[in-house]
Amino acid sequence: MGGKVYLVGGGPGDPGLITLKGAEVLAKADVVVYDRLVNPALLNHARPEASLVFVGKEPGKHALSQEEINSLLVRYAQEGKVVVRLKGGDPFVFGRGGEEAEALKEAGIPFEVVPGVTAAIAIPAYAGIPLTHRDYVASFTVATGSEDPGKEGSNLNWESLAHNGTLVFLMGMAHLGTIVQKLQEKGMPGDTPAAVIQWGTTGRQQQVMAPLKDLVQEVEKAGLTNPAVVVVGEVVKLSRELAWFAGGP
Amino acid sequence: MGGKVYLVGGGPGDPGLITLKGAEVLAKADVVVYDRLVNPALLNHARPEASLVFVGKEPGKHALSQEEINSLLVRYAQEGKVVVRLKGGDPFVFGRGGEEAEALKEAGIPFEVVPGVTAAIAIPAYAGIPLTHRDYVASFTVATGSEDPGKEGSNLNWESLAHNGTLVFLMGMAHLGTIVQKLQEKGMPGDTPAAVIQWGTTGRQQQVMAPLKDLVQEVEKAGLTNPAVVVVGEVVKLSRELAWFAGGP
Repeated sequence: MGGKVYLVGGGPGDPGLITLKGAEVLAKADVVVYDRLVNPALLNHARPEASLVFVGKEPGKHALSQEEINSLLVRYAQEGKVVVRLKGGDPFVFGRGGEEAEALKEAGIPFEVVPGVTAAIAIPAYAGIPLTHRDYVASFTVATGSEDPGKEGSNLNWESLAHNGTLVFLMGMAHLGTIVQKLQEKGMPGDTPAAVIQWGTTGRQQQVMAPLKDLVQEVEKAGLTNPAVVVVGEVVKLSRELAWFAGGP
Repeated sequence: MGGKVYLVGGGPGDPGLITLKGAEVLAKADVVVYDRLVNPALLNHARPEASLVFVGKEPGKHALSQEEINSLLVRYAQEGKVVVRLKGGDPFVFGRGGEEAEALKEAGIPFEVVPGVTAAIAIPAYAGIPLTHRDYVASFTVATGSEDPGKEGSNLNWESLAHNGTLVFLMGMAHLGTIVQKLQEKGMPGDTPAAVIQWGTTGRQQQVMAPLKDLVQEVEKAGLTNPAVVVVGEVVKLSRELAWFAGGP
């Protein structure tokens, strides 16, 4: 039988937030190729005889390069194996799933995408923050925070980001200071409610809420680092009322 | 035992895309309060003796008003029942889950949010469109298309929308013509790749790809209507290569 690759979103951290389909394909995989941000508990869905291959992507530091990961997926599939490429969150939201799909397509390997619950939406939800709300906002934007906002030719339009709906930055801690500064430079008020949530949806969830202008200081005080999600916008203040998740496994 | 409400995202249509936790709470519910855009197959997770209550929200036409739905959730929980409020997609992405959570909080009813796979990400994924891609774009914006973009005091900043990353409009068909016109007025090039995907992730999935300026005409020709997702941006062209979903059950 020919091999096949499933690009699977493992969800934001809480192992209950993988999809039924994600758990199903994990249970039939011969090989699971997984990242650092995947909850290890998800690997329990795999058969005991499945090979579990860690490719340890961290921002700025990859155990394997993206090209090596692409080649690995192609090679396993060419050996006739059922391969699950398991990623944190959703594979097509800053997961480089698009590049993996392109490599598979080029090599003639059949693949399917199994979308996941993205950290961008679920982590704020676990902190009591709905990204949209009829009384406040009709759109939200999700951006990568791992790109240096100060660099030449940044792909982000800060002018637009500062005048839009709710903003979410994934992996935003390395450049948090610059993000906060850029938004204010482009006209976002310093008293806009903001939050940083680390290890969201898991028992280790910790969060800090502060006006944008004080965010960096408050986050440093609390000692929060990546993996963390940054949320900026009026809806953040709903957290005071709607926070429901007390942590726990 | 006291009642409790779970605000559950049912995912974008494919019943395999509900989360494990979503299926679990459905299996213990006394009452399931569900919308029109929920795949009826998900109700099979409920116990045979559970009450299934349809509250049939459609854009501009609600079987029950939001206030009536809020009251219903409170009343069932006050009767000591385990209530699942089942929504299409994610409860906090234009699902009015924030308002329901506020009503529950105010009435002193314990609640949990079970995030779901949002249609905004998964439906493009099933059409072979990754919303982000290292070579093209570092952010995406999700907006409601059910608000008339021409009305006074629109909550959407069209200037920003036209100069940002990938755009996704949920329920965008009623105002598609105005959306396309507004984006071009604000400077988005008419040859920007765009797509409309109807009934995405289900066996009825149909899609149209066209440059922004021709989108309305092509969509009319194909006869697509809501429920549909509109995607605008360079990543849409990846669909030609990456489309993998052939429809199905």
